[in-house]
Amino acid sequence: MKQKIYVVGIGPGAPKMMTPQARQALEESDVIAGYPVYLKLLGDLVQNKKTIATPMTREEERCRLCFEEAKKGCIASIVCSGDSGVYGMASLMYDLLPEYPGCELEIIPGITAAVSGAAVLGAPIGHDFCVISLSDRLTPWEIIEKRLSAAADGDFCIAIYNPSSKGRPDYLKRACEILLRKVCPERMCGYVRNIGREGTEYKICTLEQLKDEQVDMFTTVFIGNSQSHVVKGKLVTGRNYHINTHMQKEN
Amino acid sequence: MKQKIYVVGIGPGAPKMMTPQARQALEESDVIAGYPVYLKLLGDLVQNKKTIATPMTREEERCRLCFEEAKKGCIASIVCSGDSGVYGMASLMYDLLPEYPGCELEIIPGITAAVSGAAVLGAPIGHDFCVISLSDRLTPWEIIEKRLSAAADGDFCIAIYNPSSKGRPDYLKRACEILLRKVCPERMCGYVRNIGREGTEYKICTLEQLKDEQVDMFTTVFIGNSQSHVVKGKLVTGRNYHINTHMQKEN
Ligand SMILES: C[S@@+](CC[C@H](N)C(=O)[O-])C[C@H]1O[C@@H](n2cnc3c(N)ncnc32)[C@H](O)[C@@H]1O
Ligand SMILES: C[S@@+](CC[C@H](N)C(=O)[O-])C[C@H]1O[C@@H](n2cnc3c(N)ncnc32)[C@H](O)[C@@H]1O
Repeated sequence: MKQKIYVVGIGPGAPKMMTPQARQALEESDVIAGYPVYLKLLGDLVQNKKTIATPMTREEERCRLCFEEAKKGCIASIVCSGDSGVYGMASLMYDLLPEYPGCELEIIPGITAAVSGAAVLGAPIGHDFCVISLSDRLTPWEIIEKRLSAAADGDFCIAIYNPSSKGRPDYLKRACEILLRKVCPERMCGYVRNIGREGTEYKICTLEQLKDEQVDMFTTVFIGNSQSHVVKGKLVTGRNYHINTHMQKEN
Repeated sequence: MKQKIYVVGIGPGAPKMMTPQARQALEESDVIAGYPVYLKLLGDLVQNKKTIATPMTREEERCRLCFEEAKKGCIASIVCSGDSGVYGMASLMYDLLPEYPGCELEIIPGITAAVSGAAVLGAPIGHDFCVISLSDRLTPWEIIEKRLSAAADGDFCIAIYNPSSKGRPDYLKRACEILLRKVCPERMCGYVRNIGREGTEYKICTLEQLKDEQVDMFTTVFIGNSQSHVVKGKLVTGRNYHINTHMQKEN
């Protein structure tokens, strides 16, 4: 009895950005679970397979359905956009694993939005960086604020996930306001929408301008560090760190 | 005249972890430049192509040789392990681009070590995280210290790159000591060596134990956040953030 589950990161969307390892896991699988939009992105790969599509917020249910399928002795995959660990299903699957003792998990990594979005913008995360989600569905907002503040203190580049959603259209603005307490308004930033999908768009702007931009949940936002600069329309953060040469505001 | 350069992230090493997009860029290329070990990892893909291998520290030279080749009217690729942006060549290539006005750059992302290493350990970066390099070749050590400290203040998970090298065998110990000022010794950590290559090894341990571990430059180290825990021998950081439930030390 196999009872195997792959937790698969399919990358940002384009088939050419999904690894052969991810493709093989899906091909091997009898059942594929995922948020409906991602199952659609997979096209032929899900054809003639049992699929489990549950709405975005019902993640635990989707994970449990996946374990139930595997328990029948088959191979199941649960798919995540980007990487399967970064705000993906891997941790929840591990936390449920003890309840399904016969099952085995294998985590298949994928290209996460910070990395695929950076390639569109140029090279914004060429030096130390943080990844922060603005979703307060599972994290208290005070923790998110604390992290934004700490990231500014450390002069990190920042990749912001979940910058907006229906219930919280102004979260990016609030995040920018927190950063502006420590970072100068001219700090170079950018964002990318629909990475690796139809209609990829990006923009480079200052932190002050970013505060008033309207972004949606299919967008990843980048805040440069004190050294970030624009070269031929692209956002670049070098690997050489020169103290104070580009420093814009001291704490 | 093409004059095109791909900056290609080839992933951690295994061919099955290189995206089709990266493979295609290499297939299209007339010339491939990179650190000798990475050219070796590419096997057949570099056969019958001109290759440019320069030692690790001569990055600018390698980049310039790549531009010179492209200027002759061909397609060149410069390869990086993992992602091409994260401590890769993308930013340096952009910074040199204005000197080679006819040339065009395209950045091809790859699976970075934080993501591929996390898949081996379980799900250590399931929540907000930082990526920090301990190499002080291009960054003053005081900045590295400041970032470690800020990452601890923000209760981020941390992925540490370049944890060691010949000239600085004790840098991981020093980093752990900085973290231990703010984080309790029982904080769960782990590291992975040779991700996606022969002889992959990993270990999960506490921060106190990590301090005395010997790691090399082919290793990526993970520091959990206050919520990280071990499930069936794997390191897991959940997406739910419970203030104070797992908090181990208050500042
Ligand atoms: C729940 S998180 C999932 C992240 C995903 N596991 C990853 O590693 O990329 C969703 C957020 O990721 C970012 N994201 C994921 N895919 C994206 C894409 N194709 N284009 C732009 N942003 C994307 C957006 O910020 C979005 O709000
Ligand atoms: C100069 S950085 C290059 C990072 C690379 N561009 C990436 O995105 O993974 C080199 C460091 O990356 C990490 N690394 C890269 N490849 C690795 C592998 N296959 N296994 C473990 N660590 C790796 C190690 O920490 C190493 O010291």
